Amino acid sequence: MNIGIIGTGHMGGTLGGLWAQKGNKVFFGSRDVRKAAGLIRVIGENIAVGSYAEAVKFGDVILLATPWWATKEALESAGSLHGKILIDCTNPLKKDYSGLTTTPELSGGEEVAQWAPGAKVVKAFNSISFAILKSPNFGQQNAGMFYCGDDAEAKSIVAGLARELGLDPVDCGPLKTAGMLEWLCLLWLQLAFKQDLPNSAFKLLRR
Amino acid sequence: MNIGIIGTGHMGGTLGGLWAQKGNKVFFGSRDVRKAAGLIRVIGENIAVGSYAEAVKFGDVILLATPWWATKEALESAGSLHGKILIDCTNPLKKDYSGLTTTPELSGGEEVAQWAPGAKVVKAFNSISFAILKSPNFGQQNAGMFYCGDDAEAKSIVAGLARELGLDPVDCGPLKTAGMLEWLCLLWLQLAFKQDLPNSAFKLLRR
Repeated sequence: MNIGIIGTGHMGGTLGGLWAQKGNKVFFGSRDVRKAAGLIRVIGENIAVGSYAEAVKFGDVILLATPWWATKEALESAGSLHGKILIDCTNPLKKDYSGLTTTPELSGGEEVAQWAPGAKVVKAFNSISFAILKSPNFGQQNAGMFYCGDDAEAKSIVAGLARELGLDPVDCGPLKTAGMLEWLCLLWLQLAFKQDLPNSAFKLLRR
Repeated sequence: MNIGIIGTGHMGGTLGGLWAQKGNKVFFGSRDVRKAAGLIRVIGENIAVGSYAEAVKFGDVILLATPWWATKEALESAGSLHGKILIDCTNPLKKDYSGLTTTPELSGGEEVAQWAPGAKVVKAFNSISFAILKSPNFGQQNAGMFYCGDDAEAKSIVAGLARELGLDPVDCGPLKTAGMLEWLCLLWLQLAFKQDLPNSAFKLLRR
């Protein structure tokens, strides 16, 4: 699969690297191409680097992995995302991580959908840490990956990209559920950084 | 331990019954003493029934298990909760379950603390279904029980009451974290009733 990445921080770098290792073609889009070029040395095969717009042109699936404050501007400079699967792993965090900048009426995921007309937005990978992505197993259990979106085929593809990495995807329903997943991120941050549980991940047990 | 229960619905009836089976003394407080009396026939030993105020007088630990709309009035009629451990398993749900009635600035758990001056409020058992409480094991894993509060000793006692039932307690920090657990309830309701996963429970995997 051809995957474009918008943002080359912890999440973008980690997910892109892992997907490339699994044989996908990954194009890292960055505002700073020299920084992105460093990823080539680290990751090796199956990757290329360039601008946001080039990443979007390359990918069938686009991962949006910017800090929240940079998200709208990044999408504006990325060109049309019409018809693309857009995985939104951002979180609308206040700069001090004390809460969300959004209201209960409009989640970050839904805002992203407004900023990327025609994209098939799937909120995903936003309530799990980049470190757990590299090592998702806890004994016999693997970490959950909670996602939501309005396009069934896009969700199915994103679930497959999670399974490739050894995660347990959990379909949480339509995109309007995104706010719940953004609050789930807040809970994870609270557990990781205030309760000293950085090596933790949510799982949905079911029978 | 002496436990008073405010509210005899699914959550109050189930938790009270299970704690009585484990040898605790449980007093069910109800607005409808005849309904509560039915619990004596079902549960058997270690229980008594009466008013909210009698339940509060009886218990060292009080479980608040009312529907949200009835919570403030129930606390007003229950008498002083000063010095009591008050387990808040309510959720500030809109009547159609579509969201929370609270704002991000003030969670339901914090409102409960305002309504029960001097009580040691622990938000707990609010993001797990009563059915899972009766049967918390999923193969080798047991369901998580996410809780928060400001009093360390009260939290330790509540964690013990969760372990008695076979649950895996997760300390999520101070009471101001309660909003995150109330959003976690919304996510569970979404998964249970919209995504057809009623036999599910959250777990925090950690290493």
